[in-house]
Amino acid sequence: MDCNKEILNDLDSLKDTLLTAATEAGATVLGESFHRFNPHGVSGVVIIAESHLFIHTWPEYGYAAADIFTCGDSVQPEKAAKILIDKLGAKNHSTVEIERGPLATKQSVLG
Amino acid sequence: MDCNKEILNDLDSLKDTLLTAATEAGATVLGESFHRFNPHGVSGVVIIAESHLFIHTWPEYGYAAADIFTCGDSVQPEKAAKILIDKLGAKNHSTVEIERGPLATKQSVLG
Repeated sequence: MDCNKEILNDLDSLKDTLLTAATEAGATVLGESFHRFNPHGVSGVVIIAESHLFIHTWPEYGYAAADIFTCGDSVQPEKAAKILIDKLGAKNHSTVEIERGPLATKQSVLG
Repeated sequence: MDCNKEILNDLDSLKDTLLTAATEAGATVLGESFHRFNPHGVSGVVIIAESHLFIHTWPEYGYAAADIFTCGDSVQPEKAAKILIDKLGAKNHSTVEIERGPLATKQSVLG
């Protein structure tokens, strides 16, 4: 919340941020897909071997929601979360970690 | 949980299921990206104008995790969830609905 509104509307910057967050967290990137909305807002996903990262932005509210969904022990989702919070210039944020299913996959929910 | 293991490993079937769930729920599909893992498992996303649907499958455990993330009032996430549960042949499932952020976006978390 209370993010930099220009960054939230900059598809290339958001793509770079999500890819950086994935690799810095130790994930293996398999693919990505980003979409810009009219008049504003971006949705983007990075598919990683260990699951996915997702972001949706609402620049008009300075708000972004992101998920960092990982399985296994090789990825550090909290590192990806920190990078996202920093790069989006978020003055406020909430993070919730959810363990899911019998495999104890982890989902870090931001925003 | 306790899903049909063959379906969980069938990329084309899962893609069809996720796209059907999106459109039947009233969403506007913008794009999709699916990936098959070796030796088994599929990750797939459908980007919709109202956010996204995601699925990760672990056929070896008969387990799938899915998210249905929507904003606005035009999409019925519970309808998409029901379609996923039915088509995956899930004998057991858990669903959690999370409201996120100041915009009250909704995320239905399956599995």
